[in-house]
Amino acid sequence: MESKDDEIVAENGKTEIPKDGSVCGFDSLHRLLQSSLSPQLFQEVSRLLLGLNCGRALDTIAIPEPAKSLSSKHDFDLQAFSFRAEKESLREPRIVRVGLIQNSIALPTTAPLLDQKRGIFQKLTPIIEAAGSSGVNILCLQEAWMMPFAFCTREKKWDEKHGEVIWNTAVIIGNHGNIIGKHRKNHIPRVGDFNESTYYMEGNTGHPVFETAFGKIAVNICYGRHHPLNWLAFGLNGAEIVFNPSATVGELSEPMWPIEARNAAIANSYFVCSINRVGTEIFPNPFTSGDGKPQHADFGHFYGSSYISSPDSSCTPSLSRHKDGLLISDMDLNLCRQLKDKWGFRMTARYEIYADLLARYLKPVSTPSHF
Amino acid sequence: MESKDDEIVAENGKTEIPKDGSVCGFDSLHRLLQSSLSPQLFQEVSRLLLGLNCGRALDTIAIPEPAKSLSSKHDFDLQAFSFRAEKESLREPRIVRVGLIQNSIALPTTAPLLDQKRGIFQKLTPIIEAAGSSGVNILCLQEAWMMPFAFCTREKKWDEKHGEVIWNTAVIIGNHGNIIGKHRKNHIPRVGDFNESTYYMEGNTGHPVFETAFGKIAVNICYGRHHPLNWLAFGLNGAEIVFNPSATVGELSEPMWPIEARNAAIANSYFVCSINRVGTEIFPNPFTSGDGKPQHADFGHFYGSSYISSPDSSCTPSLSRHKDGLLISDMDLNLCRQLKDKWGFRMTARYEIYADLLARYLKPVSTPSHF
Repeated sequence: MESKDDEIVAENGKTEIPKDGSVCGFDSLHRLLQSSLSPQLFQEVSRLLLGLNCGRALDTIAIPEPAKSLSSKHDFDLQAFSFRAEKESLREPRIVRVGLIQNSIALPTTAPLLDQKRGIFQKLTPIIEAAGSSGVNILCLQEAWMMPFAFCTREKKWDEKHGEVIWNTAVIIGNHGNIIGKHRKNHIPRVGDFNESTYYMEGNTGHPVFETAFGKIAVNICYGRHHPLNWLAFGLNGAEIVFNPSATVGELSEPMWPIEARNAAIANSYFVCSINRVGTEIFPNPFTSGDGKPQHADFGHFYGSSYISSPDSSCTPSLSRHKDGLLISDMDLNLCRQLKDKWGFRMTARYEIYADLLARYLKPVSTPSHF
Repeated sequence: MESKDDEIVAENGKTEIPKDGSVCGFDSLHRLLQSSLSPQLFQEVSRLLLGLNCGRALDTIAIPEPAKSLSSKHDFDLQAFSFRAEKESLREPRIVRVGLIQNSIALPTTAPLLDQKRGIFQKLTPIIEAAGSSGVNILCLQEAWMMPFAFCTREKKWDEKHGEVIWNTAVIIGNHGNIIGKHRKNHIPRVGDFNESTYYMEGNTGHPVFETAFGKIAVNICYGRHHPLNWLAFGLNGAEIVFNPSATVGELSEPMWPIEARNAAIANSYFVCSINRVGTEIFPNPFTSGDGKPQHADFGHFYGSSYISSPDSSCTPSLSRHKDGLLISDMDLNLCRQLKDKWGFRMTARYEIYADLLARYLKPVSTPSHF
């Protein structure tokens, strides 16, 4: 079966119950509220939900024509925003344009693997071109973007060539095609259908921060977003933007999606770019996950909803829950220092008591509760 | 001037611009959306905003008549909910009924201090009685509940009797009137008008968890909610419910308020009870806060909005932004372990790499960036 966007209206024209985990098959929370509330109420709700204090809307960026036309021709969501920072006396603004891409797979998971991979490459080409023609400086794709999220079946057919250990790795490529570095996913889920610990191991690359021409960036892969210490470590190592390429489904995590990344951006005074894949991927061989549910052949709906969180607690609206998309945002990296100076979280953090507490927590004990 | 609830309609009957930092002076986000959206859309928005998966509403608790009548007689908001947990094979449910109280002060800050204190006691009596008659097991009041939040002026007139060091302390009192213990606020803000570091010192009581008759509880006072390590430490020490008595105002923190506590509840698999005071408190002596703004005599609006977050990422609607209130919730503490078993955050946390990282981060260095 082909993976495709969930449809609200069936071919016979009757409305069907959406299969995407939602009640009414809406495109994004932001658009739902915008179309349902009066402008004044929408402004107030945005103040609270998007952290837009004083009711001011996030600036939008004018999208160049070539990008717009690629978006309508290839039917992907395209939105562009800009986060403001204060003008400073001693530093020039450091404005970076970031792009995030979310997408569904291109072919059924039963197609030959090389065809599946090629299909995704073809599908991504116009979206990447739209990012390029929009002047994006740093572009991030979703977790395991060149394949379906096939780990659930525990079949390793996508990994023909590898050493003895498999890691889930993000590669950071420079704007001259050079490889800047890589990061291996630090925290591996064993939750529901996300049986990933049978597939690859916990990363051993620590928490690298890459000093690029456009700012200090890091990658916190998927499940690592649930670990505040993981976010903290990237912050202590100097990150100004942390990308969180993910793959997660509605029933499992959708209410957590607007919480954790924003909290990380606030707590660590950096920008967080959250990306989630789109659509339902149906695998040839069914699987179970030790949660008492019968065997099944799909995870449910990957709900997209990619968005960007700012250290000032504001965030962009999310991309569509259903469609491929490109989210562009300008951000002045000076905002990171400005928020640190305003809120003083680093200064008041008292890391010494926590270093001590963690060290004590880790000491082997002989009580029966720690087998 | 008397501190009182913000009013939307002035005495002459004309609508005024609200002074509470909101655009349209609404009572709570939840009620605003409920009255503005169709039931189906409201259900979907609740699924995302309150984390109510599958669109199911949070159960409400029937409030006993005496409590209801106190609520209408003394005009305080009264809401009661219940978080569900799975039934287990080997453990009985451990259901606890928790109450949170938010309130404005009772008299102008120019009144004699003892009168102010007495006024608050009188105002709280019927709310506490309502909690008692509703069978609340654990009740928490707001930060510095027996006084206006007078730290901004830097005048120490509220602290006649103390040792050489002042701390911001929460006292935990047992259900037989015994003092179970205390906790001193760990992280002290130096942000905007919250000049508290001139007033009291960082706590030296660590992260105590109190094993009460109704569960293992801890108190994370106010600004400590911005520090993920602080939340983590209470979790590692075994907390099942963490109370966060706070005092914070709209312009500073309102968009962060629904984020940080929920994130803490998710990340640490415990319940979080967030309390914020209500109203605008106007002090006789104006103050400045080193943020370039002219002198002023108030913080702005303390926006109430007390609420409870569950480890399963759901939360209750918030109490009013304007009125005194009592929020009651039942919670089955078995949910904490159930969520730990489902998501495995503790198991996958890899604390050893973070203990090491924090220890290295704390080593004195001689680079010019660490003066």
